[in-house]
Amino acid sequence: MSCEVSLIAYTPQPARVVASAAKLCYSPSKASCLFDGLDAGAVSGFLKKLKSVGHMSPFEHASFSFAVDGLSRVASHQLVRHRVASFSQQSQRYVRMAAPEAVMPPTVSSLPEAAALFESQLKSAADAYLRLISLGVPKEDARFILPHGALTSLIVTMNARELHHFFSLRLCRRAQWEIRSLAGKMLALALEAARELFDPAGPPCLSEGRCREAESCGQPFSSVEEILTKTDD
Amino acid sequence: MSCEVSLIAYTPQPARVVASAAKLCYSPSKASCLFDGLDAGAVSGFLKKLKSVGHMSPFEHASFSFAVDGLSRVASHQLVRHRVASFSQQSQRYVRMAAPEAVMPPTVSSLPEAAALFESQLKSAADAYLRLISLGVPKEDARFILPHGALTSLIVTMNARELHHFFSLRLCRRAQWEIRSLAGKMLALALEAARELFDPAGPPCLSEGRCREAESCGQPFSSVEEILTKTDD
Amino acid sequence: MSCEVSLIAYTPQPARVVASAAKLCYSPSKASCLFDGLDAGAVSGFLKKLKSVGHMSPFEHASFSFAVDGLSRVASHQLVRHRVASFSQQSQRYVRMAAPEAVMPPTVSSLPEAAALFESQLKSAADAYLRLISLGVPKEDARFILPHGALTSLIVTMNARELHHFFSLRLCRRAQWEIRSLAGKMLALALEAARELFDPAGPPCLSEGRCREAESCGQPFSSVEEILTKTDD
Amino acid sequence: MSCEVSLIAYTPQPARVVASAAKLCYSPSKASCLFDGLDAGAVSGFLKKLKSVGHMSPFEHASFSFAVDGLSRVASHQLVRHRVASFSQQSQRYVRMAAPEAVMPPTVSSLPEAAALFESQLKSAADAYLRLISLGVPKEDARFILPHGALTSLIVTMNARELHHFFSLRLCRRAQWEIRSLAGKMLALALEAARELFDPAGPPCLSEGRCREAESCGQPFSSVEEILTKTDD
Repeated sequence: MSCEVSLIAYTPQPARVVASAAKLCYSPSKASCLFDGLDAGAVSGFLKKLKSVGHMSPFEHASFSFAVDGLSRVASHQLVRHRVASFSQQSQRYVRMAAPEAVMPPTVSSLPEAAALFESQLKSAADAYLRLISLGVPKEDARFILPHGALTSLIVTMNARELHHFFSLRLCRRAQWEIRSLAGKMLALALEAARELFDPAGPPCLSEGRCREAESCGQPFSSVEEILTKTDD
Repeated sequence: MSCEVSLIAYTPQPARVVASAAKLCYSPSKASCLFDGLDAGAVSGFLKKLKSVGHMSPFEHASFSFAVDGLSRVASHQLVRHRVASFSQQSQRYVRMAAPEAVMPPTVSSLPEAAALFESQLKSAADAYLRLISLGVPKEDARFILPHGALTSLIVTMNARELHHFFSLRLCRRAQWEIRSLAGKMLALALEAARELFDPAGPPCLSEGRCREAESCGQPFSSVEEILTKTDD
Repeated sequence: MSCEVSLIAYTPQPARVVASAAKLCYSPSKASCLFDGLDAGAVSGFLKKLKSVGHMSPFEHASFSFAVDGLSRVASHQLVRHRVASFSQQSQRYVRMAAPEAVMPPTVSSLPEAAALFESQLKSAADAYLRLISLGVPKEDARFILPHGALTSLIVTMNARELHHFFSLRLCRRAQWEIRSLAGKMLALALEAARELFDPAGPPCLSEGRCREAESCGQPFSSVEEILTKTDD
Repeated sequence: MSCEVSLIAYTPQPARVVASAAKLCYSPSKASCLFDGLDAGAVSGFLKKLKSVGHMSPFEHASFSFAVDGLSRVASHQLVRHRVASFSQQSQRYVRMAAPEAVMPPTVSSLPEAAALFESQLKSAADAYLRLISLGVPKEDARFILPHGALTSLIVTMNARELHHFFSLRLCRRAQWEIRSLAGKMLALALEAARELFDPAGPPCLSEGRCREAESCGQPFSSVEEILTKTDD
């Protein structure tokens, strides 16, 4: 089981917005004229330069909103640690889980005995949750017995600078597998919408050509395509 | 003289994005389905409720980018104090002011003697700036002699929640007149793009029906239209 | 079971720091002189005025760090949604839970049948967690089966302005009981350390004399003491 | 003329607070016990490791407040662009400048003709400011004619992580000289208060052993001492 992600909204012409903002810093032109005055080649040139020198503040002007379903609360707890971002999350105080489900990690599903134990424990947790509710316990308290892997849904908005930061942390091979998988899906959608903003984006091995992990994995990425095909490592 | 503002980009269907995010918190639906599933009436209903109870976090998912020209550095210094916002500003380190201009406040322009003094002082400051450059002083240092009212240009991005906060502070009759005038222009554009998100927005006298100023002006606003016609008070 | 909170560090003389910062805005004095130049009465006077008009930005200069143990991951997931704050949290990726425990909500413990079910489900979840690990599943994946009520520890730092905001949301009688209990303990410690900064702090019924909840509880608080004695309502 | 900086308050035992927070992430100990349980050697060891791998989030728990006088509004406008920081600044709306002064850049003071022009222009700006006020123009409008180099005072609070970020940008030899000089003074005070937190801190040439400037200066720093002696380059 794996989360589903869609890109529900983003700033129109995001590359042009970012390039205009970057150009304004160094130009005597009026801000209102820059946006229409840039041709596609100029936009590309500006973005290439900004990414190469790490001048990322203009990337803040383009914003992307994702709908995420089927994510565990293990991963959502990590996700909401990103503070330069906006989140709306399904509330377990107000929403009753009809038949509580959970993410089963690949290391569990690949071991038959572990998978069987996980399934049966999940089922008894779901039963306990529903039983507690029928005994009069409020939903918001019954959920304490649901597994941490239980599913949640969110709408997440980040600007392109924060997305770069998010991708740099969460697409590293050492990141936790579920948030890494989420980040891979977000990157694929972001590339489709605005390739010039996000190629390259990813861990420092790709974006900066170096690794600062205490214990490096020794397998630097060489392209965003390689990242996208390897997020299920 | 007064600043010029245009809205260069914003999240498409911003009201729908915000309403979807709000609905997700209380709904067992999938996040990816909510966006298409809301009709216009439901969007309006959600937004009305959110504004009335002050539940503003879903407003963060809609983002608005403005180009601002002809603003004084007095006002831009205040503007960039808003920390939940993104700014790209014309650099006085890199851009040479051809003929340095400045904002003349209405209290100055309405007094002939004051206006004449201001003009002549502005002219001698501009001459000194250009003379310092010709003597070999770098632009970034010559600007120390330019008046604080000298013009600047910015691209500013805020989400709709921060815009509400910005409007609540800066559209009060006690706010500094230039940033108040800027805020009025931004509100007019925001209302045009997404009336449901921003009606009402403004100082607490309008949005919350109360005033917390130490010395109230005693003239509460009763509508956004009244705010828009009075920002030059 | 209920979380334990201690205040491990805070800005020395926090009331004086805040009052100095507030005074600077309106004074021709040098910033470096203000701090030593304020007597206790002036500090009190400034703080009273700032709180009454809601001018909270100087409160940001005083910072408070709390150690929190025995909190559920249900509550920590809410807690880390506060973005103007710093968190260090015990990692379930790296730390093996010796004998996984969990918070049992009062609505469960007060019903013998519910409590027995909760206990036995918790025990089987803990057994499953340990069994998964012995089967070779990594800790970070075994935890998916632990209940959402499992215990965690954090160190949390907020400045006094954000603490006011946190208290205004989380000490409302309608807030989720566990985070409300945490907030009550934090408020008690904050009052002990810097009463002038935090009396009053709490939901808008106390701090602003009004309520904006869609459905008000109808029981406004009248003092911080009343809040402290009622957080276990 | 050069700004004056003093450190008016900071989190007590800042290195111990940061090390405790870091240890908590990887330890089954209770948060409340860690703080007292670390000896000085363990604190040093943790901090060395955190700095070497760039794991900076625990540094957020220690906070530092500086009083700054004699800074130009040119520099304060840059300073307040740092958004993870708290500022209280002397208001030109409310405070009348008795005898307006300004920062004269070294590139001006070292050229006699430039210095004389700057001085005389500054004097006429100060005269115009006072004359406008005597004509009935409010202080907040008269200041539009004051030079951008006019003096201001602030109280600035940043946590140790943001200070590292501030130092990395503002202590680069390519940073604007005045904010670089301010940053050098802040670093000197920070090192005195908590050497283990801030050695090394500075531009990437020192802290990361690399440079990402489009045009490198070719003179990497090799120690914080070298930075401190060279901020007036």
